[in-house]
Amino acid sequence: MKLLTYLHNEGQKLGIQINDTVVDVETLGFKSNETFPATMLELIDAGTEMVSKLQHTLDNANENVIAACSLPLSKVTLLAPIPKPRKNIIGIGLNYTEHVAESARTLDTSNELPQQPVIFSKPPTSVTATNTEILHNTKLTQQLDWEVELAVIIGKKGKYVPKSEAMDYVFGYTVINDISARDCRRAGQWIVSKGQDTFAPMGPVLVTKDEIEDPHNLNLSLTLNGIEKQSSNTKFMLFNINDLIADLSTVFTLEPGDIIATGTPAGVGAGRNPQEWMWDGDVVEATVEGIGTISNTIKEVKL
Amino acid sequence: MKLLTYLHNEGQKLGIQINDTVVDVETLGFKSNETFPATMLELIDAGTEMVSKLQHTLDNANENVIAACSLPLSKVTLLAPIPKPRKNIIGIGLNYTEHVAESARTLDTSNELPQQPVIFSKPPTSVTATNTEILHNTKLTQQLDWEVELAVIIGKKGKYVPKSEAMDYVFGYTVINDISARDCRRAGQWIVSKGQDTFAPMGPVLVTKDEIEDPHNLNLSLTLNGIEKQSSNTKFMLFNINDLIADLSTVFTLEPGDIIATGTPAGVGAGRNPQEWMWDGDVVEATVEGIGTISNTIKEVKL
Repeated sequence: MKLLTYLHNEGQKLGIQINDTVVDVETLGFKSNETFPATMLELIDAGTEMVSKLQHTLDNANENVIAACSLPLSKVTLLAPIPKPRKNIIGIGLNYTEHVAESARTLDTSNELPQQPVIFSKPPTSVTATNTEILHNTKLTQQLDWEVELAVIIGKKGKYVPKSEAMDYVFGYTVINDISARDCRRAGQWIVSKGQDTFAPMGPVLVTKDEIEDPHNLNLSLTLNGIEKQSSNTKFMLFNINDLIADLSTVFTLEPGDIIATGTPAGVGAGRNPQEWMWDGDVVEATVEGIGTISNTIKEVKL
Repeated sequence: MKLLTYLHNEGQKLGIQINDTVVDVETLGFKSNETFPATMLELIDAGTEMVSKLQHTLDNANENVIAACSLPLSKVTLLAPIPKPRKNIIGIGLNYTEHVAESARTLDTSNELPQQPVIFSKPPTSVTATNTEILHNTKLTQQLDWEVELAVIIGKKGKYVPKSEAMDYVFGYTVINDISARDCRRAGQWIVSKGQDTFAPMGPVLVTKDEIEDPHNLNLSLTLNGIEKQSSNTKFMLFNINDLIADLSTVFTLEPGDIIATGTPAGVGAGRNPQEWMWDGDVVEATVEGIGTISNTIKEVKL
């Protein structure tokens, strides 16, 4: 299922994308005498059985019911699938070989492949939707960069999860553009670089894991003003999703709704010769196969 | 007011500490025909007017009402004042001169004073209360260290807050022991070092800002098994609370309930000669003047 969150009277509603249509989950429940969760986080909390029930109800709804629940996708304003995560997004750094190399050439990181996942965070206030502006405070950064990433949404609580069982803890997937202000590292820490408001465009939808045959074989790419800058495949991750969940759950208790941005491949602006950065008016589009594309425009903040 | 959160039927209740007594806020409201927030985060969201109303109700309650709302402090199980923050705790590194020096001698940080606040984060799953165990996974770390800190609780939403107005954004203060596994830094990032489960003991209470005459003149200290290891005063912060709120709010939108751990003075285990670490059974107590002491015992995790 392709799940999405959309704007409704200043609040959020949960929807299902079917081609060019959005099925409103609340209305579907009402018309089918079922009660469904009102938000994406509540659906994740309710677990896979609730997703199955939702799918079953959808599959068995007649045309009139579907028509009564449907809106054209073009008419809704998408929010990030999880507009307000309950904790910082867990970011993974240096998780593709060529990106380790380009980072070592041009940033302050080592050329050696990491022996363990490199972890940082992006606060909930960094989350934004597709078709929104990425705010560029030019007093803070002159090196605004892009990073397309597959993001994993955790579906259930886990500590010391074995690699072999890691996929049981996955609810689904989305796309994150891990915006990074390269000149904002402080004492080596990345949170100011990675965590500014609007630095985590996310979406356009959350695809439940049953729809992705192999999350370790998805093309991912990024364009800036229509020109391709990144193009790779998730099979080139150094630490795959099972590795990451096993490792992360040794450090932190993973919880439903946690978001893991699994790292970016080569082709970031910092790694290019000459280096390239994003500026006011630039349009950056990040795509992961089977999920979709998020498109955002850089907007200089006038202070 | 000294506010606290305590355990009640697997959930949490909001209380007010008056000497050795806890006044249950819900019962106080019931007996006074007032409605008060049920949790600390709801009280913070409700703002300073609600705190004033609570204080007013308390001041005007008669002895019988107070007696009906009161429990002995010794009979309640304290939780962290905010048991489940809505985002990662914002940690400030290297914010006391002597701690910068000791860190440079023994860790991988620079000897130069930071020009801007050094920021990292600790996830909500790291929060624990006083009188709980700090879980020590010896497979992850052999260098478990302590850091007493004054923590600031944000009371209202703010972006680009001027230093002169920063105190308007403070709701109150608490104590955090910023537990740090020195050998868990990865590519220089501190989140694995700082963010493991139970690595943010917090409490014992949240003191509203009106009770603290000058947050920049508070003694803070830490003992390990009764022996003093840290002793300083918040007046020695490199970036004071106004500086921190102004800087942080330039990077992130600050929100009610945000927690800023303002950094630790000298005397951490990593900076001692020979270095000292915490092990199973050790008792660590962190105190900030005007707030109180949190006491925690190290517990080795058997895996």
